[in-house]
Amino acid sequence: MAVGETRFPAMPVIEGLRLGTAMAGIKKPERRDLVVIEIPQGARVAGSFTRNAFCAAPVTVAKANLAACQARGEGARLLVINTGNANAGTGEVGLRDAHATCTELARLAGVPEDSVLPFSTGVIGEPLPMERLLGGLPSALESLGADDEAWQQAGEGILTTDTRAKGASVTLTIGDGAVTINGISKGSGMIKPNMATMLAFVATDAAIEQTLLDSLLRETVDRSFNCITVDGDTSTNDACVLIATGRGAEVVSDEQVAVFRDGLQRVMTELAQAIIRDGEGATKFVTLQVSEAASREEALDVAFTVAHSPLVKTALFASDANWGRILAAVGRAPVSDFDVERVTIDLGDVRLVENGGRAAGYTEEDGSRVMREEEITIRIALGRGEEGATVWTSDLSHDYVSINADYRS
Amino acid sequence: MAVGETRFPAMPVIEGLRLGTAMAGIKKPERRDLVVIEIPQGARVAGSFTRNAFCAAPVTVAKANLAACQARGEGARLLVINTGNANAGTGEVGLRDAHATCTELARLAGVPEDSVLPFSTGVIGEPLPMERLLGGLPSALESLGADDEAWQQAGEGILTTDTRAKGASVTLTIGDGAVTINGISKGSGMIKPNMATMLAFVATDAAIEQTLLDSLLRETVDRSFNCITVDGDTSTNDACVLIATGRGAEVVSDEQVAVFRDGLQRVMTELAQAIIRDGEGATKFVTLQVSEAASREEALDVAFTVAHSPLVKTALFASDANWGRILAAVGRAPVSDFDVERVTIDLGDVRLVENGGRAAGYTEEDGSRVMREEEITIRIALGRGEEGATVWTSDLSHDYVSINADYRS
Repeated sequence: MAVGETRFPAMPVIEGLRLGTAMAGIKKPERRDLVVIEIPQGARVAGSFTRNAFCAAPVTVAKANLAACQARGEGARLLVINTGNANAGTGEVGLRDAHATCTELARLAGVPEDSVLPFSTGVIGEPLPMERLLGGLPSALESLGADDEAWQQAGEGILTTDTRAKGASVTLTIGDGAVTINGISKGSGMIKPNMATMLAFVATDAAIEQTLLDSLLRETVDRSFNCITVDGDTSTNDACVLIATGRGAEVVSDEQVAVFRDGLQRVMTELAQAIIRDGEGATKFVTLQVSEAASREEALDVAFTVAHSPLVKTALFASDANWGRILAAVGRAPVSDFDVERVTIDLGDVRLVENGGRAAGYTEEDGSRVMREEEITIRIALGRGEEGATVWTSDLSHDYVSINADYRS
Repeated sequence: MAVGETRFPAMPVIEGLRLGTAMAGIKKPERRDLVVIEIPQGARVAGSFTRNAFCAAPVTVAKANLAACQARGEGARLLVINTGNANAGTGEVGLRDAHATCTELARLAGVPEDSVLPFSTGVIGEPLPMERLLGGLPSALESLGADDEAWQQAGEGILTTDTRAKGASVTLTIGDGAVTINGISKGSGMIKPNMATMLAFVATDAAIEQTLLDSLLRETVDRSFNCITVDGDTSTNDACVLIATGRGAEVVSDEQVAVFRDGLQRVMTELAQAIIRDGEGATKFVTLQVSEAASREEALDVAFTVAHSPLVKTALFASDANWGRILAAVGRAPVSDFDVERVTIDLGDVRLVENGGRAAGYTEEDGSRVMREEEITIRIALGRGEEGATVWTSDLSHDYVSINADYRS
């Protein structure tokens, strides 16, 4: 299942950046499961990784190699991503396998070993099938391309339980020049990113300083991937990489940065929302807007408490206007000195709660009308301050249980 | 569905304490849905209530009335409990209805109005059907009894989506005398108590001081009802009441208190576990034991993070030894400076994780053997200190989704 349509967009070429894929048979035969992304010399690369304490071996290696590149004032040169196996919970063997993958790809491509960043996604706790993975690298390199089709195939090559490839692209006018930002992402379950979600790779031709690139990545990830949740489960393998080749327009002045930040945020948010629309078993796309909070953190706490409530999520699945479950979830959010008399809750254009209870004009008919929609916005005003946050989530359906109970993903 | 058998136990008479029920037709006809508990004069009563900010009207009134009784050095005289309607999210009307229920019952029984404590459970946000509720009070009073059958019928009269009545009883030897502790509870979904869960009523004939009774209630609730979770959703109506009639043996000396505390804890834990065994859609009863934590709070954080993980819960439902999901959930728990190298995770008698990854001797066959059992213990040692905590939970099944998506509970 999935909510709405998300067609893979047209992706303009980002000069010097190429993507290749292979069918390496890592978990299943005849499936695009290995992706290589080639980054031109002189590019800047920023990364954002999971905060799960049991982070996967490739995350450990990618972080170390990226730091080594940055210390030399360089970007990484190659990303290698496999699906079908997360190489997480694999201890020493996992680290050795992640390093061996970098060594072999570096040898084939003629670049330093630590300029290769490895990424994995799939089942946790099983050793990587190294022979098949390494065997797939030459054909992935042979297929390198920069066009639409290369982007779409790379988008497909990183999927696990996802039902469709996810891409987003904007082209911005900056000064006299233009800047393109292309991105792909994957993720469908085990989605409650803490830093970055699952896998997302975003590339731009902008010419931009490393420190600025780093801070823009942090900032835009915080308001996109860190604001989505399917099931509250933070993956061991989350990573988001932002590449700037530097061959397009310069992003330097405050005005240029503002335009670029806005475009980057749009790409990040679109990729993050695409993950929710394709959430495991999703039949609804739900936007939770919390306002009038004392702090952004408090607004996020309330939004995530509602977004993770199995009772709210099953009511959404059933299109049942059982608003008492939303009220109960808001009431248990970790907010001190909560004055429920000041809280209002709206479902779409219908006021549900005011003055500590059901709103005077509320009718079940109005509530049901909104609940039947495929895209639903819930607005919660706390009456405590000026801060706010927006979180996106999906419902909890029979298909979510089936996907996670019937298959080892 | 429900896990294992929980037969309603034999309940010795607690002299002076009587229970009555009626079919008031609050939500459905021909259903025991109204319970009155009569408490003898001179008893001491302690209460523990939900911390949900949107607490229900009866909780507000019960807390205020209990405080008024305690200020006079008295216990409450009557408890009145309806199922089928939570009287929560009902604002001013809800408070008026809760007060009106107390007024009418006080008039019928000839006791002060504020010595009646009201409790409600059921759907949130709908007004109480006052005519039917008040109409049922006389027959509930007429049926008052102290025997086994009265306890069991009261146990049935407080159920909502529960599939069976829940009771527990112990008789302790204290000094030269004996003390009995009887309890009933209800709860099946919206279970992640914060203070006390759903509804539980425990009575003893012990003679015990009010401040000691209060602290023993807090302490035993903290290690029973506050350590269970079905879905992480804290109800608006949680309440646990402990009544001591004072007609049995005295509980005064340290040794007597220790014996009484132990017996009370057993009753509380049995009642709490009965809620999990009857959790909505439950097919597994899962014990999470976290040890070697730096604090009890940290141990609880880790245990609840695993207990609330939809991915762990669906794997349990599927009897799938997908232990990577347990590892990922432990890894995202809110614990700072987490050294995963020191963590061990055991599933029953099988070591899953050590040295940051899969345990050397682990085989899928061993893991699957444990996962197929109906009662499963997961032990997580953090290698950080001496503290620990135990939490009980159920799995996430298709029936959970059906129960909460197909019916308005």
